[in-house]
Amino acid sequence: MDNGMTLTTEQSAPPGFDVNEEIYRELNRTFSSLSDRCRDYGPDFRSCLDTAFQALRGGKLIRPRMLLGTHRTMTKGATGRTNHDAALQIAVATELLHFSFLVHDDVIDGDLYRRGKLNFIGQILKQRDPDNFSDRGPDPEHLHWACSNGILIGNLFLAATHQVFARVDLPHPVRLRLLDLLEHTMNDSLVGEFLDVGLSSRAITPDISTALEMSRLKTATYTFELPLRAAAILAGLSEEDERRVGVIGTHLGTAYQLQDDYLSTFGEAAEHGKDSFSDLREGKETTIIGFARATRYWKDIEVNFNNADLTTEQGEHIRDLLIRCGAEEYSRDTVRHHLDTCRASIEELRSSLNREVIDLLLTQVDQLDNRRS
Amino acid sequence: MDNGMTLTTEQSAPPGFDVNEEIYRELNRTFSSLSDRCRDYGPDFRSCLDTAFQALRGGKLIRPRMLLGTHRTMTKGATGRTNHDAALQIAVATELLHFSFLVHDDVIDGDLYRRGKLNFIGQILKQRDPDNFSDRGPDPEHLHWACSNGILIGNLFLAATHQVFARVDLPHPVRLRLLDLLEHTMNDSLVGEFLDVGLSSRAITPDISTALEMSRLKTATYTFELPLRAAAILAGLSEEDERRVGVIGTHLGTAYQLQDDYLSTFGEAAEHGKDSFSDLREGKETTIIGFARATRYWKDIEVNFNNADLTTEQGEHIRDLLIRCGAEEYSRDTVRHHLDTCRASIEELRSSLNREVIDLLLTQVDQLDNRRS
Repeated sequence: MDNGMTLTTEQSAPPGFDVNEEIYRELNRTFSSLSDRCRDYGPDFRSCLDTAFQALRGGKLIRPRMLLGTHRTMTKGATGRTNHDAALQIAVATELLHFSFLVHDDVIDGDLYRRGKLNFIGQILKQRDPDNFSDRGPDPEHLHWACSNGILIGNLFLAATHQVFARVDLPHPVRLRLLDLLEHTMNDSLVGEFLDVGLSSRAITPDISTALEMSRLKTATYTFELPLRAAAILAGLSEEDERRVGVIGTHLGTAYQLQDDYLSTFGEAAEHGKDSFSDLREGKETTIIGFARATRYWKDIEVNFNNADLTTEQGEHIRDLLIRCGAEEYSRDTVRHHLDTCRASIEELRSSLNREVIDLLLTQVDQLDNRRS
Repeated sequence: MDNGMTLTTEQSAPPGFDVNEEIYRELNRTFSSLSDRCRDYGPDFRSCLDTAFQALRGGKLIRPRMLLGTHRTMTKGATGRTNHDAALQIAVATELLHFSFLVHDDVIDGDLYRRGKLNFIGQILKQRDPDNFSDRGPDPEHLHWACSNGILIGNLFLAATHQVFARVDLPHPVRLRLLDLLEHTMNDSLVGEFLDVGLSSRAITPDISTALEMSRLKTATYTFELPLRAAAILAGLSEEDERRVGVIGTHLGTAYQLQDDYLSTFGEAAEHGKDSFSDLREGKETTIIGFARATRYWKDIEVNFNNADLTTEQGEHIRDLLIRCGAEEYSRDTVRHHLDTCRASIEELRSSLNREVIDLLLTQVDQLDNRRS
C-alpha cells in the first residue's frame, strides 16, 4: 500500500541527528525483549519469530518518523517534560501495528511477496519446502501452515502494540487519550480492510462513497492521523488542537491514497515504477472506478475491468474512457480538495502552534502536491 | 476445545447471587459500547458485528466465572478496597480473549460449526450465500470472505481485551501486573496454537513432550492460570502467592486437557457425547499418541491413525494397541500426577489464604478427579 511513499519528516530532524537510527535502536530493543520472553518456547517458534523480525526490518518507518519528527518540532524549546522517551516508544508501537496489519493483509490477499522480496508468509513457505517452492503453485497444506503463522505473528504484534500503549510511563489521563486514539485507529483500520476485502470479493456493492471511505479508513487513519495525533497528545496539546491535527492527518492520508490510485491509473509507469494497469487488471475498486460506474461509459469499461489478461491496448482504451467519463478530472479535483482542506486546517492552528510546526505540516502538504510517482 | 467442560465455580457464589447474570450484564455493556463506537461504519460492518455478538453469546463463561468466583472467595470478609468492579471487567475481558481465540482457531481449522451450531464464520458464509450454502462445498470466494471476517473480528476482540486491561481503574503497579499476566497468556496461547497447527500439518515433528507442551500452552494458561492469577492480583495477594496460584492453574489446566484426550480415546462415547475415535480419525497429536510413537506398537497403530474413514473395528484395534503399549496407563498416571501436584500446591497456600479459598480450589481438583465425561 505504501509503495513509493515519498513523504518524509526527516527534514525536520535537527542537523546531525539521525532519527532513523534512534527508531531502529528502539525497534531492535523491542524485538530483543519479545525474543527474550519467548526464549523457552523451543526452536520451531523461535525460528518463526526470527523470520518475522527479519521480514519486517528495513521498512521506511513512515509512521514513527512522522510521529517523532512532529513531536520534536512541537516541543522544540519547551521547558519541562517533553515526553521524548514515551514518544519514541509510541513511535515504535505504530511500526509494530503496521507490521501486524501488513502480515494479516498478506494472509487475506494470499500474497507471498512485498516489493519484489518474499514476505513473512513467503519465507515460512520456502523454509517448509525449499526444494519445491514456487509462488505459482505452493502445496496447499504448506500454504496453510504459512498463513496460520501469519495470523499468529500478526496477533503477536497487535498485542505488543497494545502493551506499549498500556505501559507507557505517563500520567494515566494522558495514557487514556493515547488508548482512545489506538482504539479509534484499530476500528477504522479493520473496517477499512473489511471494506477492501468486501469490495474486491463483491460481498459489498461497489460505489464511489464506499471506495472513498475505504481509502480513509484503511490508510489515512493509521498512517497519517495516528502519528500526528499521538505527537500532539505527547507534546501536551489540548484535545481541541489534537482533534484539529487529526483532521489534517485524515485529509493528508486520503489525498495520499487517492493520489496513489490516480498515479497508478494515469501516471507514467516509468515514474511510479508499478506495473501499468495493474489496478485495472486486479479490479481494484478505487474512487476512479466508483465514479465511472455511475456514468454511461461504464458498460464499455466493465468489459475488460478486472481482466487478468488485460492487454496494453485494452488498458489504454479503458484509460481513455476514464478520462472521457470525467473520472480523471474528478480524481484530480478530489486530491486537490483534500490538500486545500489540509492547508486551511493548518492555518486554523497558527494561533496554537509554533511556526516550525506549521511549516513542517505545510511542507508535507506541498510534498504530496508535487508528487508525480 | 472446552466441549463438555464441567468445571464450575458457581458453587462458590453466595446463595441468591447469580454470578452469570452479573457477567452477562457486563458483557452486554461491553458489546453495546463496541457497537456504539462502530455506529458510523455503515450497515455492512454493523451487520458483521451483530453476527459476531450473536455467535459468541451463550458460552459457558468458564473463565470469567472462575475468576470472579475465586476473587469473591479470596476477598470475603475483607475490609477496604476489594476491586470488585475491576474484577468484573477483567473477568469479561477473559471472555473477549476467548472469543478472539475461538474465531481465529476456527479460521485456521476451517471449521464452520461449533457444538453443532453454525459458528461466526458459518453464519457469515450463510448470509453471503443463503441459497447454495453447504458446509461440504462452500464457494471458495465466499469462504475467503467469511474467513477474512473471522480474522478481523478476532482482532477486534483481541484489541478490546487489551483495552480493558490497559484502562482498568487500579493503581498503575497493579495494572502492570495484570498486563504482565496478559502478555504471558498471549504468548503461551499463540505458541500453543502454533504447535497445534504445526503438529497436525506435520510441520513440527510429533513427540510426547511437544504434545504435552501444546496442551499446557494452548489450554491450561488462558483457561486456568489466567483467571486464577488475575483473581489473586485483584485480591491483593503477593507476587509469590500469585505465582503459586498460577502453578495450580497450570496443573489443573494440563490435567483437564489430558483428561479430555483420555476420555475421548478411552471413555464411553455415550458418556462424553463425542464421536468415538474422532481424535484417531483426525490424527490428533495427543500425549497418548506421543507415548505410543516411541513404542514398538507404533508401526501397527500408524496404519490407520489419521485415517478419515476409520471403521469401528479398526478404531477398537488401535485402542487395544494403545492399552497394550502402555499409553493408556501413562495417560491416566499423568493426569493423576498433575492433580496430585495441584493438591500439594494448594496445601502450600494454607498459611496465606483463607479456608474457603483452599476448599474452593480443592473442590475444583476433586471435580476433575471425578470427571467421567
